[in-house]
Parts: sequence; C-alpha cells; structure tokens
Amino acid sequence: MSYEFVPSIPFYYQIKEDILHKIESGVYAVHQQLESEIQLAEHYGVSRPTMRQAIAELVQEGVLVRGRGKGTFVCKPMITDNAQVFTTFAQPEDGEQKHVTKMMNVRRVRAAANMARDLGIARDADVVEVLLVQMSSDEKLAIRILQIPLELAPELDRYDAERESDVSIYEFLQSRYGLVPAAALQSFQCVAATEEESALLEIEVGSHLMMWQGIVYSRQNRPIFRVKTLFRGDRFKFYISQGKRSSELSDFIPSDRAILEEF
Amino acid sequence: MSYEFVPSIPFYYQIKEDILHKIESGVYAVHQQLESEIQLAEHYGVSRPTMRQAIAELVQEGVLVRGRGKGTFVCKPMITDNAQVFTTFAQPEDGEQKHVTKMMNVRRVRAAANMARDLGIARDADVVEVLLVQMSSDEKLAIRILQIPLELAPELDRYDAERESDVSIYEFLQSRYGLVPAAALQSFQCVAATEEESALLEIEVGSHLMMWQGIVYSRQNRPIFRVKTLFRGDRFKFYISQGKRSSELSDFIPSDRAILEEF
Repeated sequence: MSYEFVPSIPFYYQIKEDILHKIESGVYAVHQQLESEIQLAEHYGVSRPTMRQAIAELVQEGVLVRGRGKGTFVCKPMITDNAQVFTTFAQPEDGEQKHVTKMMNVRRVRAAANMARDLGIARDADVVEVLLVQMSSDEKLAIRILQIPLELAPELDRYDAERESDVSIYEFLQSRYGLVPAAALQSFQCVAATEEESALLEIEVGSHLMMWQGIVYSRQNRPIFRVKTLFRGDRFKFYISQGKRSSELSDFIPSDRAILEEF
Repeated sequence: MSYEFVPSIPFYYQIKEDILHKIESGVYAVHQQLESEIQLAEHYGVSRPTMRQAIAELVQEGVLVRGRGKGTFVCKPMITDNAQVFTTFAQPEDGEQKHVTKMMNVRRVRAAANMARDLGIARDADVVEVLLVQMSSDEKLAIRILQIPLELAPELDRYDAERESDVSIYEFLQSRYGLVPAAALQSFQCVAATEEESALLEIEVGSHLMMWQGIVYSRQNRPIFRVKTLFRGDRFKFYISQGKRSSELSDFIPSDRAILEEF
C-alpha cells in the first residue's frame, strides 16, 4: 500500500512540545521573556509562519502571553477548576500562593420577577446580595455575587464583613443558618468584562471572563441562593468528566495545577 | 424593627426585565436597533449611568450587541449546550434554522508525545486529523478538530468528505469502524481567536471563543479520539446540572433555546 504523502509530526507541534518541556523543566521561568519570533525561528530552523503558529497556540492555551510590542512571556500556570462541582472561594495553598476572598459589599434588595422565581420566594421579598472578590497576594482573580433570601438568613444584611473575614461566607451560612449547598443548576459562557467588573478585577475593559450563573439548592431541594461568578478568562481552566471515574479526571488534570476547594 | 434604608428592586434591573420582556414578546425584533441611550434614559426616567448599566448587562449576557458607533441591537437567541454530555455537530431544527457541519480537511499526521499518551498509541503512530466547521445558513458557529488513531479507522485518511457530507462524522465512525463514544475527559476555557480560527469562523481576530479539549473513550474505556472544539463565545451558552435530575435542568434552560444533539 502506498501513500500520496509522507505523514509527519507538524513542525509547529514539535516546537510547541519543546517550549512546553522547557517551561516544565524550568529552562524558561514564569514571567521570563522568550527570544524574538525571528530568533526562535532561526533557532528551530523553521519559517516565521510556522514559528508564529507554535507561539499563537501556546498564547491561546494560556502558556505564553504577548506583551505590547515587548515580546512574549511565560505565564503563570492556569488555575484549574472542576466543573462537576460548584466551588467555594476558600482556597488552600496553590504552591506558594494563598488565595483569599474579600467581602466587598453586603446590601439588601427586593426580588424582581425572575429572582423571585429562581429562589422560590414572593416577588418584592427581601434578598441579601453579597459581593465577593477572590484574590491572590498579587492579583484579583474572580468576582462572585450571592443572592440569598433574607428569610433564610435573618440579619445577614447586617453582617460585618471585616470582623468575620477569616471565615468563608459558605462556612458562615452553614454554621449560622444551616444552609448547606447540595445541588446546583448552572450555566456558563464567555463574556467581556464590563467597566465595573474591570475595575474590581484590575483588568482591561473587554477582557475575557468565564461567567457562571446558577441556582444552588439545599439537601431538601429548596433554592438557597443564586450565584454569579466571573472568573478571569486568562487565569482559569475548568475540567469535566463524563462517564469516567473521578480518579481518572485527577490523572487528566496536570498535577502542578491547583484545584479550588470543593463542596 | 426598623431599617436604615428602604430596599428596592434596583432601577437598572427593572429596566433589564422590561427590555427582556419586550424582546420575548416581539416588541423588539431580532436585529432591531434600540433607541439611543439618552432616549432610553428619558423614556424610563433614569440617569444615563443607570441606563448604561442595564444595557451593559444585557450586552454581556448576549441579549443585545453594540454596533460600532451605530447603536445597540437585539441579538439572536444564544445557542445552548449541555455540558454534561459531549455533543455532535449534527443539529436538528433550531426554530427555522438548520445547522450543518462541513468537513474542511482530512489529513494524516504522526502522534507527538502527548498525543500518543492521550490516545494510548505509540509515538509516531499514524493519526487522522479531521477539521470540521459547524454553520447555520448565515453564519459559522464552531470549529472542531478530531484526531483518530489510523489503526482504529483504517483508510479514514482517504475519506471523501464531499461524498459523505450528509452523514455526520460520528455516524460514519460508528457505522464503518464501530467507534462509539461512551465517556470523555474534557477541559474548557475562554480563549481569543487566532488568525486561522478567525478566518474559518469569519470573525475578528481576538474574538472570544469557548475552547473545549478532551479525550473521548469507547465503552471498553479505550481512547478513540482527541477532540478540540472552538465555539463562538457570543453564540453559545452551556448548561450543567449537579445533583439534580435532568428534567430539572430542562426546566432551567429557556425553552426558546435549541440544545445541540447529544450522544
């Protein structure tokens, strides 16, 4: 049997693997600048379009990032998340990095029609809206907004965020009100950051965010809160297993990547 | 018991609900231009920042889209997808709209190290790479790349895409090679479209895409292909249920939104 063409591993793919290997083995450090596209093309002995494709895919995958006319840099490893479970912001060690959650605002609002329907409460019923920002020591990572019926969490609108700041909101909801998340219906999509979100996350307006929106239920199948989370698109990657054991999912997720704490 | 402030449904939220209602009831048609921000603020009797917040959230949710200095328009409804299952591109009626999948390219490559590991084959083994584009009658929606070990699908690299174009690749893989997807490990993240992807989807470079990447397994738990899908971020929204019956997920997904056919 003869073939019309000789198959081979595409050059750009081999170069991608080589650069990934150099990052994993520490030849390239996080935030290190790579050589210019011309220099890299010469080093690998390929054309500039081939070199460009290798770099473009690594940029897309969040491994490299392009500065403004200042070259290409090695990114921090992406933060991973498991889409099968909803996650808290409470975050153990991510290597050296500790993630903390800051409560930015607590206010009382009245339920509009779809909020009332989602939460199984009367229209105009009181709802407490809590705004949280997840951050590491040097960057803002995500915004989360919780909407909790006041009847389920009396006086939560008077919650003193400062005083309780070392307890996660979920721990607090559980210990004080017995509200334990057990199930959720959620959607997710790519969106562009609005001005307000950009200001909270200290990123450019229009940056990519992964927006999750959903309703969280108790073990008794009662809606306990609505949640909307905006994750920085360039910092989070989510994993999902379908018909596989979770141990197999763990093998699939790169071991150097932290998983946010789960319920 | 007295409160320091009178809670109320925020104005911007009431306006969002009113605009949504006007779209759902057909007062605003798909692609129709809305009045200017000033006119709308006057109509609703609110300040421009309040009006701007209402419009910004509807734009972010994919309900409205801003033209370049040409005002704000009503979008087509988002296409929905169920994240619990991996989906084919074969698509039944979406209202009036029929989605079709076009096979763009079939080529043979050799497995690089991580491709070989993912597919459970020898390094340098032959792999068939199939490039598909999903489209409706008037737009390109998603790109999918499948990588299938040639030993599982002999002569697939000689597949005549034109001749078989009314049979989905998945139906073909099943009927001809007995390859039936039964499980998957996948990741998803927000990425910016590369030049090549932008050309295929006829969108601007840097547009938001939802990138899924994964390994699909047979019932015998053997990897049968790797898959990478790039969905237009402004056209797809995904749903996921955790600890809820699938009937409840169906209730959660707006009924006017089509769900892609599932395995």
